Amino acid sequence: MSVGALFNPRSIALVGATDKSGWSVSTLLNLRTHGFPGTVHLVNPRGGTVHGEPAHRSLSEIPEPVDLAYVMVPTAAVPGVLREGAKLGIRCYVILTAGFGESGPEGARLEAEIADLAREHGLTVLGPNGNGYINAAASITPYGLPIAPPLIKGSVGVVLQSGALASSVLGFAQARNVGISLLTSMGNEAVVTVTDVVDHLVDDPATKVIALFLETVRNPAEFARVARRALLAGKPIVALKIGRSTLASHTAQAHTGALVGDDDVIDAALRQLGVIRVRSLEDLIITSGLLASTGPLPGGRVGVVTPSGGASEIIADRAEDEGLELPPFAPETVARLSEIVPSFGTVQNPLDVTGYVLIDRTLLGRALETVTADPGVDLVLLLSEPPRVAPPDPGPTLALYESSARRIAESPVPVVVVSNVLTDVTEFGRQVQQETGYPYVVGGIEHGMTAIGAAVRWSRTRARTLERGSAGPGGAALVAVPDVPAAERTGVWAEHRAAALLASTGVPVVPAEAAYDEEEAVAAAERFGYPVVLKAAAEGLGHKSDIGGVRLGLRGPDDVRRAHREVTAAARAHRPDAWTLVQPQRTGGIELLVGVVRDPAWGPILAVGLGGVWVEVLRDTALRVLPVDAAEVRLALSELRGAALLRGARGSAPADLDAVADVVARVAALAGALGDDLESLEINPLLVEGSRVEALDALITWRS
Amino acid sequence: MSVGALFNPRSIALVGATDKSGWSVSTLLNLRTHGFPGTVHLVNPRGGTVHGEPAHRSLSEIPEPVDLAYVMVPTAAVPGVLREGAKLGIRCYVILTAGFGESGPEGARLEAEIADLAREHGLTVLGPNGNGYINAAASITPYGLPIAPPLIKGSVGVVLQSGALASSVLGFAQARNVGISLLTSMGNEAVVTVTDVVDHLVDDPATKVIALFLETVRNPAEFARVARRALLAGKPIVALKIGRSTLASHTAQAHTGALVGDDDVIDAALRQLGVIRVRSLEDLIITSGLLASTGPLPGGRVGVVTPSGGASEIIADRAEDEGLELPPFAPETVARLSEIVPSFGTVQNPLDVTGYVLIDRTLLGRALETVTADPGVDLVLLLSEPPRVAPPDPGPTLALYESSARRIAESPVPVVVVSNVLTDVTEFGRQVQQETGYPYVVGGIEHGMTAIGAAVRWSRTRARTLERGSAGPGGAALVAVPDVPAAERTGVWAEHRAAALLASTGVPVVPAEAAYDEEEAVAAAERFGYPVVLKAAAEGLGHKSDIGGVRLGLRGPDDVRRAHREVTAAARAHRPDAWTLVQPQRTGGIELLVGVVRDPAWGPILAVGLGGVWVEVLRDTALRVLPVDAAEVRLALSELRGAALLRGARGSAPADLDAVADVVARVAALAGALGDDLESLEINPLLVEGSRVEALDALITWRS
Repeated sequence: MSVGALFNPRSIALVGATDKSGWSVSTLLNLRTHGFPGTVHLVNPRGGTVHGEPAHRSLSEIPEPVDLAYVMVPTAAVPGVLREGAKLGIRCYVILTAGFGESGPEGARLEAEIADLAREHGLTVLGPNGNGYINAAASITPYGLPIAPPLIKGSVGVVLQSGALASSVLGFAQARNVGISLLTSMGNEAVVTVTDVVDHLVDDPATKVIALFLETVRNPAEFARVARRALLAGKPIVALKIGRSTLASHTAQAHTGALVGDDDVIDAALRQLGVIRVRSLEDLIITSGLLASTGPLPGGRVGVVTPSGGASEIIADRAEDEGLELPPFAPETVARLSEIVPSFGTVQNPLDVTGYVLIDRTLLGRALETVTADPGVDLVLLLSEPPRVAPPDPGPTLALYESSARRIAESPVPVVVVSNVLTDVTEFGRQVQQETGYPYVVGGIEHGMTAIGAAVRWSRTRARTLERGSAGPGGAALVAVPDVPAAERTGVWAEHRAAALLASTGVPVVPAEAAYDEEEAVAAAERFGYPVVLKAAAEGLGHKSDIGGVRLGLRGPDDVRRAHREVTAAARAHRPDAWTLVQPQRTGGIELLVGVVRDPAWGPILAVGLGGVWVEVLRDTALRVLPVDAAEVRLALSELRGAALLRGARGSAPADLDAVADVVARVAALAGALGDDLESLEINPLLVEGSRVEALDALITWRS
Repeated sequence: MSVGALFNPRSIALVGATDKSGWSVSTLLNLRTHGFPGTVHLVNPRGGTVHGEPAHRSLSEIPEPVDLAYVMVPTAAVPGVLREGAKLGIRCYVILTAGFGESGPEGARLEAEIADLAREHGLTVLGPNGNGYINAAASITPYGLPIAPPLIKGSVGVVLQSGALASSVLGFAQARNVGISLLTSMGNEAVVTVTDVVDHLVDDPATKVIALFLETVRNPAEFARVARRALLAGKPIVALKIGRSTLASHTAQAHTGALVGDDDVIDAALRQLGVIRVRSLEDLIITSGLLASTGPLPGGRVGVVTPSGGASEIIADRAEDEGLELPPFAPETVARLSEIVPSFGTVQNPLDVTGYVLIDRTLLGRALETVTADPGVDLVLLLSEPPRVAPPDPGPTLALYESSARRIAESPVPVVVVSNVLTDVTEFGRQVQQETGYPYVVGGIEHGMTAIGAAVRWSRTRARTLERGSAGPGGAALVAVPDVPAAERTGVWAEHRAAALLASTGVPVVPAEAAYDEEEAVAAAERFGYPVVLKAAAEGLGHKSDIGGVRLGLRGPDDVRRAHREVTAAARAHRPDAWTLVQPQRTGGIELLVGVVRDPAWGPILAVGLGGVWVEVLRDTALRVLPVDAAEVRLALSELRGAALLRGARGSAPADLDAVADVVARVAALAGALGDDLESLEINPLLVEGSRVEALDALITWRS
């Protein structure tokens, strides 16, 4: 849905304006004091004077065209306002009124009525149960809570699935001197959704970064689509998505009816889509502010320039957390710095130019210039910040910061300025930034390092995406759609059928022979050579080992006969037609689990993990929303905590990760091709030894 | 060393005062503007007028007694000042001058000279290379950097091994309206050390919480002593200790010469001592401020009252991170809240009273009062904060906050007020707090939840300590000192000797018989019953499996004979007198590693972990500084990521953790009793199956 008109009205009617409502007071005050260039009309059924101005009795009484109706009438009266407005040709609405879907069945019915009206008349409706929006770029502020001045214009677009947090986010952005382009409080999203607004921001020239507070991803496919557009457009999406805990999920569901979803799946999906997930409101704004200031960063090798040894050490610790590298300076940099830094200092990265900055105020700037010229760094972190309080004569201070600002602007690599601790940028600090062109100052080392780490990772994801030519989950299908007739897409398939289907797509599968009696089992075993494995087989038979349907390490004919007797007896208690499969026994190698399961929101999800304690105790699996290509699978494997095992820890041969990724990608492609009929597909284990990759067992379950 | 006099002088001489030095300007200004009640004398060898006041040519010229000399003279002149001062009876010194141990051998020599002078004349010297201190409680501020007003007095004592960070910490504390009692910039600790100051703060009635920035723990034994005193006194120590990363360790070493130490050991030691370790300067002050405001907290069941659904969800996520519980409200609480919260809201914990707070400003307070009365919560988190900007008529606002302050003060459980985001407490906010008694406001949900989690954990550690009657690493030795003659405390002991020593202290050890030829080996095997294990044995033989000295799963006499031949052949290549040990083969159970190794700083360290991938790939071990008791070992076991295995994951029998802890504590006690001669003691594996605990192999290495 296009929302450009919603955010750019030339005339606004406040419907339900009244002196008794703080919302009404604030909305009008916001429009009047933050520079709305259009006209504002007040509507109150009693007419008379509201907020000191004459009010109209209804929308119809307004003599001019209205672009946007800001609706604050009682819940039950809202549909009537929309009907009247639609008749008058008013296309855009913000509904502040609450009492809809969030309050129970009657509210939900009214909300559906609003959605129906919008569809029928082509209306663009923000809300209900939202505070409206702040189009700072265009000074259009139909927003129901007080906006403390100054409203700082900038390039961060903010979209929130929370009304109450909007003011906190706005206040924090102001405290950090982060300017916004558009801030939207979504409300219940009866008509206009988060993705509609994000879609708009991707095309909005005033917006460089999109910051989201999300309770729920209502439409994953649509979210994925706009996230891919944002990534290709080079506009980072930074998201605080709640629901990591079960309690938060329940809380959100109770308070807005939103289904929060499986957080592991959402986390994987956001990572795949290049969405930066943060865990605090502070990181949301600080990280957005950084990316709005620097754009994509060229790499993760950071030169650090500080006037403090203690701060350097904190930065070094945090850099390691964030996977950032602080490489040693090049010899020529060391030589140059040795002439700048006092003799009692030490020249190294991170650099402490010492407290001598208090004597020689050019020291930090000269060191910065030298470090930015180092050939081994992708960016430089400068620990500095504008002063909090204006000195009696601000002239020299402004000159100093102006010269720093020039150095930073002329630097061959991006310079990220970080303050020691997270405090407000004061009024004088803001003035220094404005008057000298001093750049964005990241708020404190702690959040600053989080932001730099996130920005570097996002930049890498973006670069990878541009290389591939497509964004997010992707990659061409590796397999042709297998010809599985609809009638057969049912129940639980016997292992041999699942194995055959996998094999047909190029997945290596351990050989197996069916045996219907002891002698056939022995004959098969002799052909493979001992030791062998014997398993129960039957259509509809799920996890065989749970019913005693698997025997490993059979070393001779007697073992095989006994196993056949016991396994068929056990299996026939469940499936009277059960037979057995004989396979050679494999030893050594590393066992992987590869599964595809269906998430109710995101569709088929690939899970890869290491067997044994890794999955069972540590829950160490990496997830991916389908489709995925082999490169994405390799990334997933590298995220496993047990990844060191695949690289050859504990004396085993390193796994051929390309071979593993190729096989897993084929499994994923098969699952994707099987479409919505597939409930789950599981290979457990996929045995990996060097470049040998082989599925030892497989299970396919259909939805019907 | 007693430092009371250092921090409480009635007269101060600034030695080396000069108009050219910013430090000199700042120090005098600080003393003059922050209310120093004593006299200040300026000393400059040229005499004349300095900072607009007459200066003395030397300390001797000052006509009155001087309690503290603040020394800013050039490096080489410092010893002379101390000598002159000592002669005049001046006992206390702050040395700001740099160029000592941190700058090279000549500086180190001068620093040693200062330490010698101090010892000889009984001088108390802070620094060199430190900015001095701020005794806010007594308005004594000999501190070399500007202190921006207002200097907020309070009960957090701050001690920093960094000069440059002191001002950041001070500024951040001010921004959060956290008052300090004493702030000390330690410098090189030539004489007065961090532990001296902490010791002082433990007894200082103005101090309730001690905040540390640490590069190094110079004297672990002394640090442990003062940390235990602090814990028993109920004064939390909150510490930002750098050096988590290798790079930070190197950085710190380069810039102050401090050895940072093994961070895993330090982390374990701090935890054991009840020191709260934080990772950011923000958390250092926010957590200290919280504990200064609440004191110990009664438990981790939190009732949450907010005016925001979005914030409630963030709080729920963060509570889970911190191990805090948000229990469901009691039925009577739900009933009462249902009458308070608007019908479109939902009554649950965390509670969102809805944006209706804007209409009814008493809503939040009434909900708070109800939740504090809930019988199932230990404390209440109230999401609120004072306003940032004064309204035209502040009266009603002040009245509202005064009524909230009264409710909070009268609450039966502690109420922790947390703001949405971390911004400065503004001047008006501070005024509201001062005039209404509104309590400390924790800065933002993100850092606030960290602080609450840390405060709850500290309170539990303290309660546990009070129960035990002693603090930190402790517990009576479980074993008598074994009688190991000094002459035998050498090299690497053969397994059987280590096993015998363990057995003598009550550690269950697998039976073993020595065999000097194949027949003896077979005879031993027959007595145990097959399968058996055969191992090489010899004095001085370390990790046997590395040289092919271990054979498992021997199922008959032929196996045993062959194993004996091969193992002795392999072992005798290293030790010509090698023989073998025969033991019954154990199967099943969970393998633990138990080791005691010597840390150069902290002495013997106990490490427990699970065998296999847990230790080898995940480095999943829990460390403890000795001594430990069984309760502490149980805590250590519970910290393992693989702890679920011990509780019976993967179908194994749950381990009897009391039995395991008892055995491990005996091992630790033995290692402690063996004292400084012991290099390491290792049991690998300690096999645990239910309540059966048995050492299957043991290795003792002596230092000589």
